[in-house]
Amino acid sequence: MLPIRSYALRRMPTAAVLSIGDELVLGQVSERNGGWLSAELLKLGLMVSEHRTVADDRLAISSALRELASRAALIVVTGGLGPTDDDLSREALADALGTELEEDGRALQNLLDLYRRRGRPMPAMNRKQALRPKCAKCIDNPHGTAPGVAARLGESEVFLLPGPPNEMRPMFHDVVAPAVLVITARAGGLQLATASVHSCGLSESAAAELIRPLMERGGNPLVGTTASGAVVTARIRAMGAAATDGALERAVQEVQRAWAPYAFGRDGLTLPAAMGEVLRRERAMLAVAESCSGGGVGALITTVPGSSRWFAGGFITYSNELKRDLCGVPSAMLAEHGAVSEEVARALAQGAAERCNCRFGLSITGVAGPDGGSAEKPVGLVWIGLCDRVSSGAPPNTKARCFQLLGDRETVRERTARVGLQWVRLAALGMGDVPLLWERPTQGVRA
Amino acid sequence: MLPIRSYALRRMPTAAVLSIGDELVLGQVSERNGGWLSAELLKLGLMVSEHRTVADDRLAISSALRELASRAALIVVTGGLGPTDDDLSREALADALGTELEEDGRALQNLLDLYRRRGRPMPAMNRKQALRPKCAKCIDNPHGTAPGVAARLGESEVFLLPGPPNEMRPMFHDVVAPAVLVITARAGGLQLATASVHSCGLSESAAAELIRPLMERGGNPLVGTTASGAVVTARIRAMGAAATDGALERAVQEVQRAWAPYAFGRDGLTLPAAMGEVLRRERAMLAVAESCSGGGVGALITTVPGSSRWFAGGFITYSNELKRDLCGVPSAMLAEHGAVSEEVARALAQGAAERCNCRFGLSITGVAGPDGGSAEKPVGLVWIGLCDRVSSGAPPNTKARCFQLLGDRETVRERTARVGLQWVRLAALGMGDVPLLWERPTQGVRA
Repeated sequence: MLPIRSYALRRMPTAAVLSIGDELVLGQVSERNGGWLSAELLKLGLMVSEHRTVADDRLAISSALRELASRAALIVVTGGLGPTDDDLSREALADALGTELEEDGRALQNLLDLYRRRGRPMPAMNRKQALRPKCAKCIDNPHGTAPGVAARLGESEVFLLPGPPNEMRPMFHDVVAPAVLVITARAGGLQLATASVHSCGLSESAAAELIRPLMERGGNPLVGTTASGAVVTARIRAMGAAATDGALERAVQEVQRAWAPYAFGRDGLTLPAAMGEVLRRERAMLAVAESCSGGGVGALITTVPGSSRWFAGGFITYSNELKRDLCGVPSAMLAEHGAVSEEVARALAQGAAERCNCRFGLSITGVAGPDGGSAEKPVGLVWIGLCDRVSSGAPPNTKARCFQLLGDRETVRERTARVGLQWVRLAALGMGDVPLLWERPTQGVRA
Repeated sequence: MLPIRSYALRRMPTAAVLSIGDELVLGQVSERNGGWLSAELLKLGLMVSEHRTVADDRLAISSALRELASRAALIVVTGGLGPTDDDLSREALADALGTELEEDGRALQNLLDLYRRRGRPMPAMNRKQALRPKCAKCIDNPHGTAPGVAARLGESEVFLLPGPPNEMRPMFHDVVAPAVLVITARAGGLQLATASVHSCGLSESAAAELIRPLMERGGNPLVGTTASGAVVTARIRAMGAAATDGALERAVQEVQRAWAPYAFGRDGLTLPAAMGEVLRRERAMLAVAESCSGGGVGALITTVPGSSRWFAGGFITYSNELKRDLCGVPSAMLAEHGAVSEEVARALAQGAAERCNCRFGLSITGVAGPDGGSAEKPVGLVWIGLCDRVSSGAPPNTKARCFQLLGDRETVRERTARVGLQWVRLAALGMGDVPLLWERPTQGVRA
């Protein structure tokens, strides 16, 4: 991909992301804000040209700020705004600006109010969080104690944001995003537009093959694929005229057509939200019975606000006793076929649907590992069951499918949950028999 | 935390990591090599002071190399060694060295042999992978086409490694690790050892206050805190003699003493695993009934391999009907007090323990948001119930506690789950009444 280089050639403004923390440079905690900020800035039409992570070191932070200010129109800094001695982002920004820190009255008041609402006195050490460099502004933080800081360093707009994503992200949307629009407007308006299309159930190579013509080098719009767990996403980027003349939208539609019915949504839409949309339209309720996923499917579903309109709940049947007592799986069936089997997956799905009085029942039972695998049922083998009580009168239509997943325990569990949701989505669309990635020929197991 | 700064003061050698790739700075693919390299270098006694990620841009890469060479004894570069036009790490290193590229006969022969073994001719574009700066050395790559490159830039040892972890990691162990030993030996041998202690239920300020003497600037061993969700971790680092004379272990024990009973483990031990250890020792089984957490508590518990020894499963009672039908919560109670109430939290916990035939029943019911809040029950208000059927004979001992959490839906759910697990752990240790962070005076709700 050449867009960043061509950006430099066109002298378009770029952004830099600076993450602060010993635990990050030491590899004790993995840095998560940089990728999110890059993607959000890209959506706003501003390209990130550099990420940097430095230690809680006042000199290292101020040098990085000076170096980045020489080439970036925007610098977003995360971390180092806490109350302890090793939180030094405020001090380092003051050094880079060649000024002093002073206390911000409004920020102090916000801190005192926050602790009053929490019903306890503000610890003395938190008072330093109300400091900001002279000639800088504090940014309110409705979600935590650390206010943000905004300042102009040379030609560059600098924002200090808190490290915790739940505090950083809202502050980005409230304060940084509007500043980005000003920067891109100065550069002649939106130069860049991006969109993404998400699929589940295709391999990345199969998905890429289906849209190969769109992926040619140097194309504009330019399309690339990325795979994350069970979801393959097409990332579409249009520059210059193509960003505004509808070419982007046409590319989105081409990808959606090529990936149907696996394409479940675009941009910010998640798989559980997309599945929920279909269930809501069908006025269908879903229940789950989870063994190896241990509640992860329900947790994924309920990331969607308002999911109670189409999700009732269900059972975590981690032990065989609970498979029997909660979902009515016969002991003889468990003894004969084992908990990881087509029969038990079907019984769990039907038990969940019937006992929760829902149209759909989804069950997961498998060998997540690292232990418990065998020659016949290796680690990563998962049975997913789906019961569809088309109408409360008709007999339930219950199927189970066998999947062989690769990866560690958490990878197996996360991928299983997403494959299960895609199956429910397709079934609610009347396409429950479409083949899905990682499915294993069942005779391989029956043998 | 100051060790990295004190490293600089002591003129101890440090390392820098440079990752190359448009897809990384654009946030389309998350950078994974940096954290791994930092942790490996730390094990070898060399501290990483900076990570950088830059685009596939020859000038950006060479400038980064020059800047880093001015302060790091070792620079590990990953990516940009492929055969395509946008793979520019070799060219950029030559620029930084002020020299030209030349073809390496041995590297070319390895490439030709590799393709012969693969039974197809070498594509013309791959020949550039045999190029290296004059005065640099190529490093054999047994796992792929891209040879590595080693060179000395100023006072700094530079290694260009391939981006794919399965090619990068073996090359690091074969070639970079021995070079690190030479660097640390020059500086007087192993300089560094680290450990961490984890707690849950204390605020970061309160936790820091309890170990303030250990956190003094410039101390050795040196202790700093980081907060992630509901878990506060003390990161302890010992340098020089303190790394080997037992001082690190004494510091670990001091933190554990100061944080008791909130300290649940050290180093790699997670909260669910620590809770499970206690349940296993007590021969106690746990069941859950989850409303707003939707299965997230069970999912967190079952991240622990072998958790079936102390976790049976339970209920996802997202709808009121399932609270009634699955856990026996009386409709009148739901009508009178609402689903988010002390009474319902207690009934859910007791229903889970009894119907799953476990000693402990843990329930979660709250307002996760973003909608559904009220003046009396704002977003973030969560009731956690805990039933302890001390002996199947004795009447169950069931309590519920009210917490007020800050943050978005996912933050509220994640923190609630961890607070719940810590309460179970403490209860199994006979300390179920210890105060926990974010607890809200209940009369505030009753009023």
